[in-house]
Amino acid sequence: MRYEELTIEGRNAVLEAFRAGKPIDKLFVLKDCSDGPIHTILKEARKTDTILNFVTKERLDQLSKTGRHQGVLAYSAAYQYAEVEDLLRAAEEKGEPPFLILLDNVEDPHNLGAVIRTANLAGAHGIIIPKHRAVGLTATVAKTSAGAINYTPVAKVTNLSKTIEELKKKGLWFVCADMDGDSMYQLNLTGPIGLVVGSEGEGVSRLVKEKCDMTASIPMKGNIDSLNVSVAAGILAYEIVRQRMMQ
Amino acid sequence: MRYEELTIEGRNAVLEAFRAGKPIDKLFVLKDCSDGPIHTILKEARKTDTILNFVTKERLDQLSKTGRHQGVLAYSAAYQYAEVEDLLRAAEEKGEPPFLILLDNVEDPHNLGAVIRTANLAGAHGIIIPKHRAVGLTATVAKTSAGAINYTPVAKVTNLSKTIEELKKKGLWFVCADMDGDSMYQLNLTGPIGLVVGSEGEGVSRLVKEKCDMTASIPMKGNIDSLNVSVAAGILAYEIVRQRMMQ
Repeated sequence: MRYEELTIEGRNAVLEAFRAGKPIDKLFVLKDCSDGPIHTILKEARKTDTILNFVTKERLDQLSKTGRHQGVLAYSAAYQYAEVEDLLRAAEEKGEPPFLILLDNVEDPHNLGAVIRTANLAGAHGIIIPKHRAVGLTATVAKTSAGAINYTPVAKVTNLSKTIEELKKKGLWFVCADMDGDSMYQLNLTGPIGLVVGSEGEGVSRLVKEKCDMTASIPMKGNIDSLNVSVAAGILAYEIVRQRMMQ
Repeated sequence: MRYEELTIEGRNAVLEAFRAGKPIDKLFVLKDCSDGPIHTILKEARKTDTILNFVTKERLDQLSKTGRHQGVLAYSAAYQYAEVEDLLRAAEEKGEPPFLILLDNVEDPHNLGAVIRTANLAGAHGIIIPKHRAVGLTATVAKTSAGAINYTPVAKVTNLSKTIEELKKKGLWFVCADMDGDSMYQLNLTGPIGLVVGSEGEGVSRLVKEKCDMTASIPMKGNIDSLNVSVAAGILAYEIVRQRMMQ
């Protein structure tokens, strides 16, 4: 497995990356800079729906590893994203009801990597993350996934709620991890399912939660607030595995 | 919560730490150095069964943060260890059958911290780690435990197999996490129990495994080798929670 360089700096390098179809997670552009080359880069970025950040020179200098950013710097993904359709196709090919894991607001690359790893072993067909406020498929994610990133596809979508709506039309049920939800042991988690897990701080966002059919809680007995997000995802994913096996 | 300084350097500081009863995880002493003060420190270290490492000057220089180790350097635990009896007492006070988690060869502080966090929320009464080849209660462990280290006791024992034997006499059953074991869903995991989880690379060591009454596997469907140890511990711990709840 090869971990690619993640930061692309300078006008030519960034433009080339876009034109080569490299997955760019985020683009940082010098504020109030709008000459020809930057304009071309912004056009490319908008084509691919890349997240744009207009920042100060100080911020760019800070992000830069080479010191030669020329007012533009991009974070490219180390691995290629899949499409939501690829995830459904993976389920179909295995003759299994789809089992997807959706992450909302999970910004820690270790957590994303650990969830990809768990998803692979629990037999989930893929992971969906939102484009905004999420970590990309960085080298850290790849490493923490222990190689699972090569097998378990990750799709990135613009709007998680909308994706849920579309997948519901295709027969999927959605269960949202929520501390105030019903005990996961009391829910029917069999059939085509999407498991939605949020960040440790904020949980799943309201708009996404409202789209879900069920909310599931992990019974908690302790003194502290919450489980680590990758542990929580693992426990919930395996409750789905258990229920599927018991059918 | 306060994270203590972890490295104690220099003869007086180390001796003082021992005499004050500070929990010392490991002691590094300059090889072939046996003058009076070092001798006294070694005597103290042997009293408390501290792990001794005789190392070269180069190694000490490398470990040293102040550059003034004077041939001796100690790692002190950030938090106090409990005794195995404390763990059993915690169960008794709650009127619950004991539920302990034993970690074998887990050397990553993030994993130990995450397991303490999970143990707290799953209602386990404590964690047992071996003195050798294990991480101590460092600041990283405390941080990763998300505060659970203040509630869930961790005991450190010289010989994990022997501790298992002693606890078996007190009525505990031991289940060892093992990829070749029986499916965890098919085992009876109710009653007083000790869950033994090993490192990601090596699993549970043979001697410890042989002492266990059962081996439990998490069903794995994927392409990669193993779950993250803290995720695996979480999934197994919650299978115990589920079975206790269903009783």
